[in-house]
Amino acid sequence: MLHSFAMLTDLYQLTMAQGYWKLGKHQKRAIFDLFFREAPFQGGYTVCCGLASVLSAIPNFSFKEADVAYLATLQGYDKKPLFQADFLQALLNLRLTVHIEAVLEGTLVFPREPLLRVEGPLWECQLLETALLNLINFPTLVATKAARVCYAAKGDPILEFGLRRAQGENGALTASRAAFIGGVSATSNVLAGQYFGIPLIGTHAHSWVMVFENEIEAFGAYAKVMPNNCVFLVDTYNTVQGIKNAIQIALKLKKQGCHLLGVRLDSGDLAALSIIARQLLDEAGLETTEIIGSSDLDEYVITELKEKGAKISRWGVGTRLVTAYDQPALGGVYKLVAIEDDKGQWQYKAKITEDLGKKMIPGIYNVRRFFSNNVFVHDIVYDRNNPNLTSSLEQQGAYEELLVPIFHEGKLVYQSPKLSEIRERTLEQLQKFPLEFKALKPSVRYPVIFEGVG
Amino acid sequence: MLHSFAMLTDLYQLTMAQGYWKLGKHQKRAIFDLFFREAPFQGGYTVCCGLASVLSAIPNFSFKEADVAYLATLQGYDKKPLFQADFLQALLNLRLTVHIEAVLEGTLVFPREPLLRVEGPLWECQLLETALLNLINFPTLVATKAARVCYAAKGDPILEFGLRRAQGENGALTASRAAFIGGVSATSNVLAGQYFGIPLIGTHAHSWVMVFENEIEAFGAYAKVMPNNCVFLVDTYNTVQGIKNAIQIALKLKKQGCHLLGVRLDSGDLAALSIIARQLLDEAGLETTEIIGSSDLDEYVITELKEKGAKISRWGVGTRLVTAYDQPALGGVYKLVAIEDDKGQWQYKAKITEDLGKKMIPGIYNVRRFFSNNVFVHDIVYDRNNPNLTSSLEQQGAYEELLVPIFHEGKLVYQSPKLSEIRERTLEQLQKFPLEFKALKPSVRYPVIFEGVG
Repeated sequence: MLHSFAMLTDLYQLTMAQGYWKLGKHQKRAIFDLFFREAPFQGGYTVCCGLASVLSAIPNFSFKEADVAYLATLQGYDKKPLFQADFLQALLNLRLTVHIEAVLEGTLVFPREPLLRVEGPLWECQLLETALLNLINFPTLVATKAARVCYAAKGDPILEFGLRRAQGENGALTASRAAFIGGVSATSNVLAGQYFGIPLIGTHAHSWVMVFENEIEAFGAYAKVMPNNCVFLVDTYNTVQGIKNAIQIALKLKKQGCHLLGVRLDSGDLAALSIIARQLLDEAGLETTEIIGSSDLDEYVITELKEKGAKISRWGVGTRLVTAYDQPALGGVYKLVAIEDDKGQWQYKAKITEDLGKKMIPGIYNVRRFFSNNVFVHDIVYDRNNPNLTSSLEQQGAYEELLVPIFHEGKLVYQSPKLSEIRERTLEQLQKFPLEFKALKPSVRYPVIFEGVG
Repeated sequence: MLHSFAMLTDLYQLTMAQGYWKLGKHQKRAIFDLFFREAPFQGGYTVCCGLASVLSAIPNFSFKEADVAYLATLQGYDKKPLFQADFLQALLNLRLTVHIEAVLEGTLVFPREPLLRVEGPLWECQLLETALLNLINFPTLVATKAARVCYAAKGDPILEFGLRRAQGENGALTASRAAFIGGVSATSNVLAGQYFGIPLIGTHAHSWVMVFENEIEAFGAYAKVMPNNCVFLVDTYNTVQGIKNAIQIALKLKKQGCHLLGVRLDSGDLAALSIIARQLLDEAGLETTEIIGSSDLDEYVITELKEKGAKISRWGVGTRLVTAYDQPALGGVYKLVAIEDDKGQWQYKAKITEDLGKKMIPGIYNVRRFFSNNVFVHDIVYDRNNPNLTSSLEQQGAYEELLVPIFHEGKLVYQSPKLSEIRERTLEQLQKFPLEFKALKPSVRYPVIFEGVG
């Protein structure tokens, strides 16, 4: 979306880049890993997402004349320029030469496993930090939320309705894509349909009903003009009467060979109302007319409604999905893990803070996921520079190496799958993931073994 | 940012638009109001924000050939097209003729008061709904959050650091602007600086420290290359030692006539560490070196730290501000309030649902804010079509009419103030707003009187 991803950064990346450049350290080779420390929503897994934006951002990474002209205006406290002219010229000339490895979209990932690794000249790695975090953190969060909502719905289709309350127009687009990857079936967001090919859904709002003299007239008018896309929203006035009115029009439609796809409940006691609606629809011979529920839904509310016997077969989920309402940010970080010393050897780096929760174990981690009968057994996180360990790991059965080369010396070496294939990958991964770890708040954790590290 | 705001919509707006069009109702004049039902964060006020995006979106509202070509591919359940060709042609020809009134950015607003009103042909009003909600809901939420954070900081500058965990790149940009309007002093987001002219801040990260052999070398190197922009992050290893190392370099800087602007604490017990830091800095004669605190801050944590006597004078606030963490969506709605009947009279509309929380009182509301000695007294919400009431209101003293004409027949009739002026308006409004309603969770509410309505 943006003209220049190079400027989508925190100022300190640029001040540090100038610092490294002035000290002649900017070309020192470094490795940074992007990872998170805790799965969101107290859940048992996280669905990796956002690589597609990285694929388009990296080739678009360059500082333009207008960008450096702006940077030239910035001042230190002494009113002298923050950036010197020859550094800005170096930014203008900068072309990325980094290697990037990443975990593919739709892959389940776990705390401390690298989702993405950047290896290359120190200043390039540093200048990419903020954009990469921005591009990975949010989609990963929403794809995970979507998978949880789908889990709660037990196979019922989830419809994503979040555009109006998403965090910005792009927050909405990103969320619609990530939600689809996480398992959602369709979106109301027309732009997301157009850009990404996500199936669209939508019929009418309360305002439609209110424009007419009464509800029956409103439903009748809608059926007349859109007979092949009829879902009636029945709660504008009295919901039970709304259901009866919908049935009356549905029976007329039936005579014309058309079908009322559904009624939508958007307020009130969704469990009780859906049970009434199902009964009335069935009595009228409208067994295939579905009941769609919406109204501040999330995985917890859907679980509760299911437990109450709600007869809802499609769920419209908006705000709470696209903003990841109960945890609206993933705490992904991007940390220096190694830097080349003067002898060309990797020197491991770790922030040994007093805050134990943020403590890192030194190493250049790769991740292998082991399977038995197509079911996840465990992940082994190992230091790629320890070949003995690597060979012993190879004897432990079928596995997948999670980090895949994406860019080599700044050139794309990976072909992105179609969106439908990415979504398929999520569903496959979730199918192979043992049930005991899949609960909304599981009591046991999938084993991730940090072997020989630290 | 987007090419076409017309497509930033929910599908049902388009299916309804076609419905109205087929029924010959699309040109019927209608009025829709955008409002919210509850102040976010259980607070006592809301800072209106987002109009600037509406100003650029409305003139860009048009369906392009590619848009209608995409819409032509959508199908109903019978695999026949959802949209008919002559309707799509009508979309291509559509130019907005709506009037829009709005509350200016930086104005305090309250539940049920219209933030924005659209008046015009029914289908135009309907087609704008989703984009308007998306463009107003989120900035209003973040501007409000920012004002709360500033309130908690009692005049200390707030620095916004949220880009890396914001909801999309545009979520970040929008948040940086809204946070500035809400009272934040500066942002780390370079693009927000470039686009909006918001002051930028940034020095170095933990990675800078880790690139060097030790902390003292890292601080020394930074001071050497960026002497006019020195804030040292002191918690990479041991925070107290970090403060001492920072002081050592600061004293060297001082000899060169340069000044250590601050030390930043990013983990641990910020209250205790800041008290130690202040003492050590003061003892070293560095009384003007500030202490900056960051690490998952929000209005509640800042309040707590202040209560503990923290010696922090600048606060870096990121994730919890830009995602409005504890309530990441404003429940703004856009509702039909009136439609012209066949005699050209406004017919009031209200959704009389069983859900009392969503009940609306019929009327075309305007809002007057009354002042006494430059302090808010109350808001009076009145029906604009009841002139008797209007004249009686006029005798109640100084007031401001909140809704201002923005577009007339689709043409811009309003000139947007500079960003700094908008921010100034927020600060002025908050200054005029009585203290008893300003608490983070006030026990009393500012009086909004719905006079003669309903």
